[in-house]
Amino acid sequence: MVGAVSAKQIRLNVLEQCNASFAAFGLWTHPRDRAVEYTSLDFWVEYARLAERGLFDNFFIADVHGTPDVYGGSVDAALRNGSQGPILDPVVLISAMAHVTSDLAFTVTGNATYEMPYSFARRMSTLDHMTRGRLGWNVVTGYLNSGARAMGRDGIGSHDLRYDVADEFLDGVYRLWEDSWEEGAVRKDKERGIYVDPAKVHEIDFRGEHYRFRTIHATETSPQRTPVIFQAGASPRGRAFAARHAEGIYINGTSRQVAAEQVAAFRKLVAEEGRDPQSVKVFAGVSVFVDETAEAARARYEEYKQYASIEGLMVLMSGAMGIDLSQYPLDEPLRFQENDANRTVMENMTKHNQWTLREAMDAKALSGTNIPLIGSAEEVAEELIAWADETDLDGFNISRTLSFEGLERFIDMVIPQLQERGRYKTAYSPGTFREKLFGHGPHLPSDHPATKKR
Amino acid sequence: MVGAVSAKQIRLNVLEQCNASFAAFGLWTHPRDRAVEYTSLDFWVEYARLAERGLFDNFFIADVHGTPDVYGGSVDAALRNGSQGPILDPVVLISAMAHVTSDLAFTVTGNATYEMPYSFARRMSTLDHMTRGRLGWNVVTGYLNSGARAMGRDGIGSHDLRYDVADEFLDGVYRLWEDSWEEGAVRKDKERGIYVDPAKVHEIDFRGEHYRFRTIHATETSPQRTPVIFQAGASPRGRAFAARHAEGIYINGTSRQVAAEQVAAFRKLVAEEGRDPQSVKVFAGVSVFVDETAEAARARYEEYKQYASIEGLMVLMSGAMGIDLSQYPLDEPLRFQENDANRTVMENMTKHNQWTLREAMDAKALSGTNIPLIGSAEEVAEELIAWADETDLDGFNISRTLSFEGLERFIDMVIPQLQERGRYKTAYSPGTFREKLFGHGPHLPSDHPATKKR
Repeated sequence: MVGAVSAKQIRLNVLEQCNASFAAFGLWTHPRDRAVEYTSLDFWVEYARLAERGLFDNFFIADVHGTPDVYGGSVDAALRNGSQGPILDPVVLISAMAHVTSDLAFTVTGNATYEMPYSFARRMSTLDHMTRGRLGWNVVTGYLNSGARAMGRDGIGSHDLRYDVADEFLDGVYRLWEDSWEEGAVRKDKERGIYVDPAKVHEIDFRGEHYRFRTIHATETSPQRTPVIFQAGASPRGRAFAARHAEGIYINGTSRQVAAEQVAAFRKLVAEEGRDPQSVKVFAGVSVFVDETAEAARARYEEYKQYASIEGLMVLMSGAMGIDLSQYPLDEPLRFQENDANRTVMENMTKHNQWTLREAMDAKALSGTNIPLIGSAEEVAEELIAWADETDLDGFNISRTLSFEGLERFIDMVIPQLQERGRYKTAYSPGTFREKLFGHGPHLPSDHPATKKR
Repeated sequence: MVGAVSAKQIRLNVLEQCNASFAAFGLWTHPRDRAVEYTSLDFWVEYARLAERGLFDNFFIADVHGTPDVYGGSVDAALRNGSQGPILDPVVLISAMAHVTSDLAFTVTGNATYEMPYSFARRMSTLDHMTRGRLGWNVVTGYLNSGARAMGRDGIGSHDLRYDVADEFLDGVYRLWEDSWEEGAVRKDKERGIYVDPAKVHEIDFRGEHYRFRTIHATETSPQRTPVIFQAGASPRGRAFAARHAEGIYINGTSRQVAAEQVAAFRKLVAEEGRDPQSVKVFAGVSVFVDETAEAARARYEEYKQYASIEGLMVLMSGAMGIDLSQYPLDEPLRFQENDANRTVMENMTKHNQWTLREAMDAKALSGTNIPLIGSAEEVAEELIAWADETDLDGFNISRTLSFEGLERFIDMVIPQLQERGRYKTAYSPGTFREKLFGHGPHLPSDHPATKKR
């Protein structure tokens, strides 16, 4: 690796969710796993310190409304496995994690169909103040009918409508964050007794199809105004939404070639929106199992795997796909009725019946939808670099394996290898999350739709 | 004072709001005042440590949706004075404040007409976990039309309807907190791979007039289940609501006699609800100005008062009363049109024209709706004890004066006097907020309506 200075720096997010079992389902039962401590604040504070020790860019917290109830037609399997439920509200953890760190950013998931723009914008601005501009927002629209029923609706509604609602929600919060308070509105002039110059604060009269409000933004301008926007929609409508709004997305890379195609297609969409295609950072999820040698790493993986729960994984996948996997046999070749709408998906999952469903689940048991990387520190580092270079990915979400052991090993063993190869920072750069990620900011660039209404 | 052991211990809350100017309007302009730091997390963390040093029971954070726009018919005066606006969302500050303290409780204001029961209950349960059971919830219904418009409505609606909606909201969140998860549902059984016993988790099918939902509670049972409920409604409907739900209320005492009547009337209402009348703690707001001698305290008060803003106070009062005080002359006796609906209120405020409006405002400039206590440490302590003994009040909200100087002086000077008189704890008692307040818990007692559906 020559020219370390010019080579693209790899960006890393911790990928988490506030529950006992996530991504590597079942590992909470491992004697050394600490995920069952997730209801304790000390756990999250220690976790944040660990991520900052690894110079991670961002602590990304996934979230979901509702408890998965597609697998077996009830929430029972989810609860038994602690799989995505019970779950905490991530938004109230951030301030404690921010207080013990100085540079790590926090991206919190927020639903753009279940909230009101005014109160949501106020909450995010408060967190952007409290983190001194280290806030990201992962925009989701909700995919569980159980979540919709919990929020007083009959169901989640059509996929495209959810994105239309979300589009309008974002337009609403952008107006509050970007257009209500001019720069310089806050005077804090003790001599003259003027806290804010009212002439520089503007009421937003928003009249949409799904949201309407008339108000000033409640909170004085925070360091970034709009938090760094993340989005993960994989559907055509989801990708179009991300191309318009997102500054960070994540993809599920199945192979480098597929990932490269996804990244290129996505950057093209971004350009078509009139935005700089490099103004969106693209991440893929990885699950890392590292040891001194490849053999030791494989042995570690196998040792962890004794604690895996494929039922926990099937709970997640059933909910995400809307297919009750409990209706299919685990150990026999799949057979389909003529009219089985799931046939194509199920055949792809089992590689056209080369695998049983158990074998298909087994292969993903510790990595879920992430890329599994098992090897020595050198091998894992080289793999990450190869993925980045061959796909134009900007970085990776390092997902939970054994909590905290997996992340500690990654930080102590893989990060130095990335640093030696000149592909990972050795110190944080100054500024807000947006400035750290893009080298400019702290506000959204002028080609972003949020700033065009100004 | 004899029999210190048997005398009722005085309970103390810090009373705050996340903005630059609150209660003692204008003091943010004092050179030593620190309120303008309110957008910094360090400010709140230091504040929490200070309150715990004073063995305060509770850090109570008031909140409001919307910016006051009744005074002068716009938000201009509110913004100019930083009076209740701009404002932060208090709910996201708590975890950082909880992390640096071990016994101080936090009561966060939450609106029972603008939220959805499922997501609100999840947020509160998360905070009850993160604080290890040190959470209170101040239930409000919203009184600003500007807040209603910000939340997408035409206006706040009728007063009694708001309380009907809130009643139903509380019934909804009670069901989630109290009835969805049985004790012992969470197993965390690593051996058998059982995180939760699904048989002990129950779906709540709530069908109200204003809210409906069908879901399990998202979050495993937190230490207190339901946070300690505070409420401050002063109207007959508000008092009835508080008598049914509240475990803590606050009143605006104008004199000891009036306060004693209010406390007695309220405890009677609580008893009529079938609840122990002592199962609700009653607090009055006080603004304390203390110094070595009464003369020095008065001088300190006068020195602070040079920085007061009666416009800031009128912004608050106009919003709270729904009367635009800017339409009345400040320095002339008030005259009323025949049909002036505000006449009675305005005459009471000016003591039937003994005072000009300026003089009426001036008297409240540094204390707002609180009881002003100005004197030596001994005098202030004796006053507090006399108020408690003559009114049956359980304690006081110590409101912001000069930030942080006012609270520091109270802690260093008045608290030792209360302790010497055996009327204030010298160490925290163990347990959750509810256990500390009432000596039993951590859950609601069996005479509370939340537990009756079990």
